[in-house]
Amino acid sequence: MARVSQEHLDARRRQILDGAALCFARNGFHATSMQDVLKEVDLSAGAVYRYFSGKEELIAAIVAEVLDEVRAAFEAAAEQSPPPDPDALVAAVLSRTLALRANLVVDGLPAFPRLVVQVWSEIPRNDELAGVLREGYGAVRAAWARIVELYQKSGRMRVDVEPDHVARTMIAAVLGFIAQQALFGPAPVEILRDGLRALMSMPDGS
Amino acid sequence: MARVSQEHLDARRRQILDGAALCFARNGFHATSMQDVLKEVDLSAGAVYRYFSGKEELIAAIVAEVLDEVRAAFEAAAEQSPPPDPDALVAAVLSRTLALRANLVVDGLPAFPRLVVQVWSEIPRNDELAGVLREGYGAVRAAWARIVELYQKSGRMRVDVEPDHVARTMIAAVLGFIAQQALFGPAPVEILRDGLRALMSMPDGS
Repeated sequence: MARVSQEHLDARRRQILDGAALCFARNGFHATSMQDVLKEVDLSAGAVYRYFSGKEELIAAIVAEVLDEVRAAFEAAAEQSPPPDPDALVAAVLSRTLALRANLVVDGLPAFPRLVVQVWSEIPRNDELAGVLREGYGAVRAAWARIVELYQKSGRMRVDVEPDHVARTMIAAVLGFIAQQALFGPAPVEILRDGLRALMSMPDGS
Repeated sequence: MARVSQEHLDARRRQILDGAALCFARNGFHATSMQDVLKEVDLSAGAVYRYFSGKEELIAAIVAEVLDEVRAAFEAAAEQSPPPDPDALVAAVLSRTLALRANLVVDGLPAFPRLVVQVWSEIPRNDELAGVLREGYGAVRAAWARIVELYQKSGRMRVDVEPDHVARTMIAAVLGFIAQQALFGPAPVEILRDGLRALMSMPDGS
């Protein structure tokens, strides 16, 4: 009994988070009301408020979930010996992140990239969300920096660059690729993988 | 007489564009009214509408100006023989783009990165702006691809990757770096330059 009940609770929670993500991706956080979310998920206010106190909590949960997942993926990569090359690693993590949300569609297009950009645009006026994003981003960046240290220790990458700076650059490439998808439509992650690989093939002037 | 008058017109136009950029960076495009812009630039409606028909035209002019400038910078780089390395080129163009807008400050921080993210968030509901962005981005991407072809022709980059894919990747790194600044505050462009350089120092598996 208890187990079925927990499954039901989890599924309901998932349904609410996905519905809210669709609303936020479609209209932005600011212009979305809890009424919109209730309508999207087709549940009563009582059913939804049992899980989330309001749209602040919804967006925070959505952002935290993505960043946790990405952090875990990079922490797992840092445990591998040797860790995957950056081009392959970025493509694997990004393609998994997108695939897990492939069911979320707005205007016939993947909703996730648009959701990401809508969250970014909300940050200057939303301190709580900014805090969630800052913490999650910091954890992803730290995990990436550990991978960079492994590249450097094994002699595969020059050691005169701060691991954190490489981490920021790798994350920048992914964030910008997601922004491009939000702006100009879906694109295979292999574009980013091959672009990074081509950059790796250049002499670095050292 | 005519020359002074043209200078005055240009200065007035600049003043209006900068004031509008500040408003859009601060509150987003959607929540900004022409009244807000008039107040920011401290001009009469008549004075402003002589230059721009409304906020649609303002945001389009702001976006087109940035993209024109960036495109011209990459086209100039494509004329150099050899063109600058990607790490140095990206840092030079981005730092110039930021420096030209260093006078635009919101909440004590550079306004430009926030403006960029606000423009992105507006794209799904604004077809005209989406068109301006798409055209400008296409031109930057084409200029970048020509530089990539030069890297490849001179044997400095592997030739089995589409120049356009490298172009998209390089632009992604810059866009993501700008997004990071909008989200987490200013950061020296040398971080991105050195991160790219470190990536270039890795073996590419070929």
